[in-house]
Amino acid sequence: MSQKIQIGKIAILLASLSEDEFQPFQSLLKHTTYCQGKVGSMNMQKVISSVETAAKRTGLIDEQLYRETHALYHAILEAIEGVTRGQTAIGEMMRTVGLRFAIVRGLPYESVTEGEWIAVAFYGTIGAPVKGLEHETIGLGINHI
Amino acid sequence: MSQKIQIGKIAILLASLSEDEFQPFQSLLKHTTYCQGKVGSMNMQKVISSVETAAKRTGLIDEQLYRETHALYHAILEAIEGVTRGQTAIGEMMRTVGLRFAIVRGLPYESVTEGEWIAVAFYGTIGAPVKGLEHETIGLGINHI
Amino acid sequence: MSQKIQIGKIAILLASLSEDEFQPFQSLLKHTTYCQGKVGSMNMQKVISSVETAAKRTGLIDEQLYRETHALYHAILEAIEGVTRGQTAIGEMMRTVGLRFAIVRGLPYESVTEGEWIAVAFYGTIGAPVKGLEHETIGLGINHI
Amino acid sequence: MSQKIQIGKIAILLASLSEDEFQPFQSLLKHTTYCQGKVGSMNMQKVISSVETAAKRTGLIDEQLYRETHALYHAILEAIEGVTRGQTAIGEMMRTVGLRFAIVRGLPYESVTEGEWIAVAFYGTIGAPVKGLEHETIGLGINHI
Amino acid sequence: MSQKIQIGKIAILLASLSEDEFQPFQSLLKHTTYCQGKVGSMNMQKVISSVETAAKRTGLIDEQLYRETHALYHAILEAIEGVTRGQTAIGEMMRTVGLRFAIVRGLPYESVTEGEWIAVAFYGTIGAPVKGLEHETIGLGINHI
Amino acid sequence: MSQKIQIGKIAILLASLSEDEFQPFQSLLKHTTYCQGKVGSMNMQKVISSVETAAKRTGLIDEQLYRETHALYHAILEAIEGVTRGQTAIGEMMRTVGLRFAIVRGLPYESVTEGEWIAVAFYGTIGAPVKGLEHETIGLGINHI
Repeated sequence: MSQKIQIGKIAILLASLSEDEFQPFQSLLKHTTYCQGKVGSMNMQKVISSVETAAKRTGLIDEQLYRETHALYHAILEAIEGVTRGQTAIGEMMRTVGLRFAIVRGLPYESVTEGEWIAVAFYGTIGAPVKGLEHETIGLGINHI
Repeated sequence: MSQKIQIGKIAILLASLSEDEFQPFQSLLKHTTYCQGKVGSMNMQKVISSVETAAKRTGLIDEQLYRETHALYHAILEAIEGVTRGQTAIGEMMRTVGLRFAIVRGLPYESVTEGEWIAVAFYGTIGAPVKGLEHETIGLGINHI
Repeated sequence: MSQKIQIGKIAILLASLSEDEFQPFQSLLKHTTYCQGKVGSMNMQKVISSVETAAKRTGLIDEQLYRETHALYHAILEAIEGVTRGQTAIGEMMRTVGLRFAIVRGLPYESVTEGEWIAVAFYGTIGAPVKGLEHETIGLGINHI
Repeated sequence: MSQKIQIGKIAILLASLSEDEFQPFQSLLKHTTYCQGKVGSMNMQKVISSVETAAKRTGLIDEQLYRETHALYHAILEAIEGVTRGQTAIGEMMRTVGLRFAIVRGLPYESVTEGEWIAVAFYGTIGAPVKGLEHETIGLGINHI
Repeated sequence: MSQKIQIGKIAILLASLSEDEFQPFQSLLKHTTYCQGKVGSMNMQKVISSVETAAKRTGLIDEQLYRETHALYHAILEAIEGVTRGQTAIGEMMRTVGLRFAIVRGLPYESVTEGEWIAVAFYGTIGAPVKGLEHETIGLGINHI
Repeated sequence: MSQKIQIGKIAILLASLSEDEFQPFQSLLKHTTYCQGKVGSMNMQKVISSVETAAKRTGLIDEQLYRETHALYHAILEAIEGVTRGQTAIGEMMRTVGLRFAIVRGLPYESVTEGEWIAVAFYGTIGAPVKGLEHETIGLGINHI
């Protein structure tokens, strides 16, 4: 792939690897800004707002700019499609998610005129609201910002 | 997470990492069977049949058993939801995908009575049918088999 | 249920029962008009047009009236949602269907001012384009006409 | 159709026929296990948990096995797609459902190696939350278990 | 377009234009019945019931007839698809809408046998539940009644 | 609404009004760039590429920048959701569309830091592939660019 910085791959590694496992990939973080977090919920609103809050609190996006909120929001929704595979209303569907997430912002293309893009990745479990009755799930959303 | 073997995480690493990058994770492959492949297409049928063919040719699933074909098919569809984020008809939508995929089969749970499960992961690009006009995409589907 | 004539139930029995099995239900057909047919395809267009053609050829709907075509079309689409469970583009998805269908038109409500309604039912199999690699499927759509 | 036991057809007849109407089909139940129930709600969670509770209470599935819960859950979701025809969030959509359901477990294929499968069927009404402002609806989901 | 009365276009102009801007189009309202309203919510149920209530209170539809409620309900849902573009559960998705709506009922076709049809249009904003963090949105649904 | 330039409303008026009808709204076009076109097809790809071609040929977007193609593509897809109301594969569904479209680019917000946004609107008919068997349809998509 001709991409300079693979913000999607970086985000998915940040979300799915332990700190130790991520060591060999530390150099990929150069020239990006990123943040990480965790969320467990049966409620889609809580998942969305956890990611938005992390992005704003760490200054990853400028919360005064609707433009940036809009870009992040659509990246989150796309990542959630991967997590829920077509059934976005998790609580309504009697499922609960336990997720680690990562948001990565950077210049993925050779040409600087392509500007900044943002990647949101989730990794964790989805299942019945009973411990153990669950399997792994993943999601990635990418947008220009 | 209480899972013994994280077949989803293994699948996503196989699909997204280069051979060198995957070295530190080789030990995770113990006690699993897996296969890998590549597919580029504007055609969803070709994506599905590439994965099915790889799984059957390598003996990862028993092609005489509809049960196993059915389990794999739904895992593929779920992974495709992550790749296309709600717009599964890629050709119809003027998009093309260039994907690496991995299929991992194993026992993800402590209890052996939970039996075997299968994970299908995609990593690559999705975009306009013009080189470079594309961004990263990822998808993971998991099913009991 | 307070319905006078259960056009949906009649349609589903016509589509799923053999002629012999349907004998005990013959009296339900009184005061309805109906037709039946079969379609096997990987192509959604062929499924839709088989039902439309049957409805027009048997005079079940007036093909000069867009109003009636519109009512039937949406009943067909709703029935197809049940058959494909969210993945309406069957060919694109590498699946093939073998379906019997029935269309029933009548007055389902006590009050005659509620007028005529139409029910479309499918019963058959959906699966890989290989004989035997398939399972049963059903769908029902209902609309005012 | 080459199927030995049509668990889908049996489930839909159990859900839609009265006890008297079902008499001619009693012999179909041989070699299956099944259960039946009723649920009325504007709330998708209540529909899902009614079916899960019935399946567990009657021992139709082993509630200690996530594998079986997972198989049933996806069969329920597929049946709900037929009931709601693409709009799974019923309460949010101002609709209410009154449903009878049946779950049938058995060996649908000639070859015993295909193992057990499960069918979930719904039949009833969907409509505005006002008595009479409703029409019939049906749904069927099938999965290997 | 061969349509006599473009109820969809009229509805969208009523919903999106100010009273002054609509002046040049007043003559289009001849031979139609229509009503207008406003709704702001994070809750899809409130949007649906605002439109239904307006239609019933102004006598645009006969609330005793399920047939008319059914036609209006599906027109509303189709208009909401345009507003939310595939994510119908707005509250769950952390979005809020501020909408003006119009409902127009009339004979859109040359042939009187085509009978009456109904159009529902929305125009307004959708966005984060923070003033200003929003963009325009529109939706139109049409059905025979 | 607090928006300075309502690019969505302008786009919908350009797409749905005749040249004469649009006269009173000419002044709204100041400070925007826009283009218009027509497309009739049973093929979603043709609809998407007609809009993309118009945007590139008129210089409304910079075709060298993936960033702009990406923003336009998602605005088109969102507008198509309104046109097709959840069934995006039009040809597969036996429907044909006859659409006028408009693309408007400008600064919709008071704050210049919000930058440029793009609106894509469709207005026309959707229906069976037979003249007259069709009704009006509309769609609007908006994105930051």
